[in-house]
Amino acid sequence: MKVVTAIDSMKGSLTSQQANQIVANVFKDQTTTVTEIAIADGGEGTVAAFLHNTKARAQSVMCHNLCGDVIEASYAFLEVEQTAIIETAATCGISFLDHTARTHPIRTNSFGVGEQILAAIEQGAKKIIIGLGGTGTIDGGIGMLAALGFEWLDQHGHILAPFPYQFEKIVAVSTVNVSPQITAVDFIVATDVMSILTGSTGAVYSFGPQKGLQPDELANYEQQLSHYAKLLLMDQTTKAGDGAAGGIGLALRTALHAKVVSGLELVAQSAHLADEIANADLVITGEGKLDSQSLQGKVPVGIGRLAQESQVPVIAFVGSVVGDEALFASNGISAVIPIVATVCTLDEALEQAAFNLEQAATRTKTLLHLMTN
Amino acid sequence: MKVVTAIDSMKGSLTSQQANQIVANVFKDQTTTVTEIAIADGGEGTVAAFLHNTKARAQSVMCHNLCGDVIEASYAFLEVEQTAIIETAATCGISFLDHTARTHPIRTNSFGVGEQILAAIEQGAKKIIIGLGGTGTIDGGIGMLAALGFEWLDQHGHILAPFPYQFEKIVAVSTVNVSPQITAVDFIVATDVMSILTGSTGAVYSFGPQKGLQPDELANYEQQLSHYAKLLLMDQTTKAGDGAAGGIGLALRTALHAKVVSGLELVAQSAHLADEIANADLVITGEGKLDSQSLQGKVPVGIGRLAQESQVPVIAFVGSVVGDEALFASNGISAVIPIVATVCTLDEALEQAAFNLEQAATRTKTLLHLMTN
Repeated sequence: MKVVTAIDSMKGSLTSQQANQIVANVFKDQTTTVTEIAIADGGEGTVAAFLHNTKARAQSVMCHNLCGDVIEASYAFLEVEQTAIIETAATCGISFLDHTARTHPIRTNSFGVGEQILAAIEQGAKKIIIGLGGTGTIDGGIGMLAALGFEWLDQHGHILAPFPYQFEKIVAVSTVNVSPQITAVDFIVATDVMSILTGSTGAVYSFGPQKGLQPDELANYEQQLSHYAKLLLMDQTTKAGDGAAGGIGLALRTALHAKVVSGLELVAQSAHLADEIANADLVITGEGKLDSQSLQGKVPVGIGRLAQESQVPVIAFVGSVVGDEALFASNGISAVIPIVATVCTLDEALEQAAFNLEQAATRTKTLLHLMTN
Repeated sequence: MKVVTAIDSMKGSLTSQQANQIVANVFKDQTTTVTEIAIADGGEGTVAAFLHNTKARAQSVMCHNLCGDVIEASYAFLEVEQTAIIETAATCGISFLDHTARTHPIRTNSFGVGEQILAAIEQGAKKIIIGLGGTGTIDGGIGMLAALGFEWLDQHGHILAPFPYQFEKIVAVSTVNVSPQITAVDFIVATDVMSILTGSTGAVYSFGPQKGLQPDELANYEQQLSHYAKLLLMDQTTKAGDGAAGGIGLALRTALHAKVVSGLELVAQSAHLADEIANADLVITGEGKLDSQSLQGKVPVGIGRLAQESQVPVIAFVGSVVGDEALFASNGISAVIPIVATVCTLDEALEQAAFNLEQAATRTKTLLHLMTN
């Protein structure tokens, strides 16, 4: 039997690779081979997925994280394709937030993303894929653009520090110092966050609270971000994806003319996932949380639809499932297997995730073979 | 395919019959027949199990519950076998406790059990099976024996009210007014509580707290119960089963010469469970909670061992499972399937039990057939 594992990361507990490996170790035996495919959607884990699935090598670079600390962060580089894969989470990840005033969104930025872009260009990248998602910043990409040479000016023509607390003073943007190499690079935005910059689903109202914005700060922050965005948008309106990664999506699309693609699809293509699935007898996917009422953008649903074309059965291991599981079947997911085994808190579930997944995989394998023995 | 369901009740959510029915409805199809066998261990549900599994008819009788309220309570009667099945939970069940002083163990008793025994004898019972378990009383059976004519006397020869608050005044027991029909009846105690009357696993220390005894009351209560027990035990020591149902086990064994048998085995025999299992392709059992470290007395383990003899695979649906599931395999349980589907509280799990069981059964059926289609 040929099994393909393509399990999404389970937030707060297992990476995609860890989850794949746990399940693969259970399923591998004398008659079963398992191909493990790392999954990501543009957010955290995208670089790791390319490193696992392709010939890309990790490239380490010293740069600044969202609050200015110097860190070492990696991107992936495909030598032959002259393509770099950068993820915003590597330098602007929400894990850098320490919930003090120091990491409040008005004082953080995406400068490190720009530094990684420059390093990749230096290395010879002609195409740069930037995975958006999992950031702790809401800077509209001002930090990233500043690292590339963009300058924001106040009414006196003075250059402003590239942070949200300066948004309201901006009256003009200067590109005279932008690195000319930038224009020779193809930028690709890989994301599964399809929200526009502003509004209830945007970078401030939808993602602000988890990044440290207080309820009474939202309206003002939204207004200032909109003011900053005007210079980038010119007369355009904000589009799907602009709201990803605290507005870095907007900056990439407008200032760097990036093409926006689905993060999951990009990762899937890089791993030849469709071919692997077509040749499999069983596909195993998974997700931290699955809700039958909201299937949009969920990895198991994407995998399920791919597998449906080849009529290969799909099992999804999930940390938690809500709603009627029959609804998943029409999306190509034959069975959804929750991995929790008992009444527990979220913390306990996260802590037990590896053990629970192994147990769930074991009992699932048993059931698959039970009536055929 | 022939499936047998024999799922134990899931405390606080589903009776054995309800659980069986939910699973049977999922598994029944054009090629699958399901035989539903109600399971009980002597405690609550034992009468219902006999009514479901055998030709027994329900017999309703007005009697007193543990705090003296008049209630209608049923027992089961097998006409041909002249056998009655009574459960102590019907009149002394823990659900009658209202956590006020009125239902404190010192003021409650098992009088209603005696009334049911008399009604069964009146109906022609030559054999009376008494299922122990699930009681809110700790009266050593004094109420039950009083209903049958036993009298407890103080030092002045006065008859004492048959309640634990009188234990310390007892100096003698009189049997002159015991109904003579009693001696012609075979009493069987059906229980899976194998504790002796006293000590850390006994009626007071192990079960007292859940029945309303405060920590500082335990030592004194144990002493008074022991004093009462002396007249029944004579020079014997307390034996396994005496501690069941707040000490009703002791009264049945000593005063009524009851034989003690396993409640689960008795119910299983009445339903010809071993034969049904031997003829099945798959056995489905279940339990509220399963712990790989403490398998003693658990229904799925009993079923698993039975099925092992006939090499029939067993699946166990459980509300919650703790520990390494591999340990269940050596007890004949091929797979343990937890029915919880998400992080939740105990209350939520209990409320969702029917839905969760149905979903778990559905996905299990899918997995059983997935690779054979």
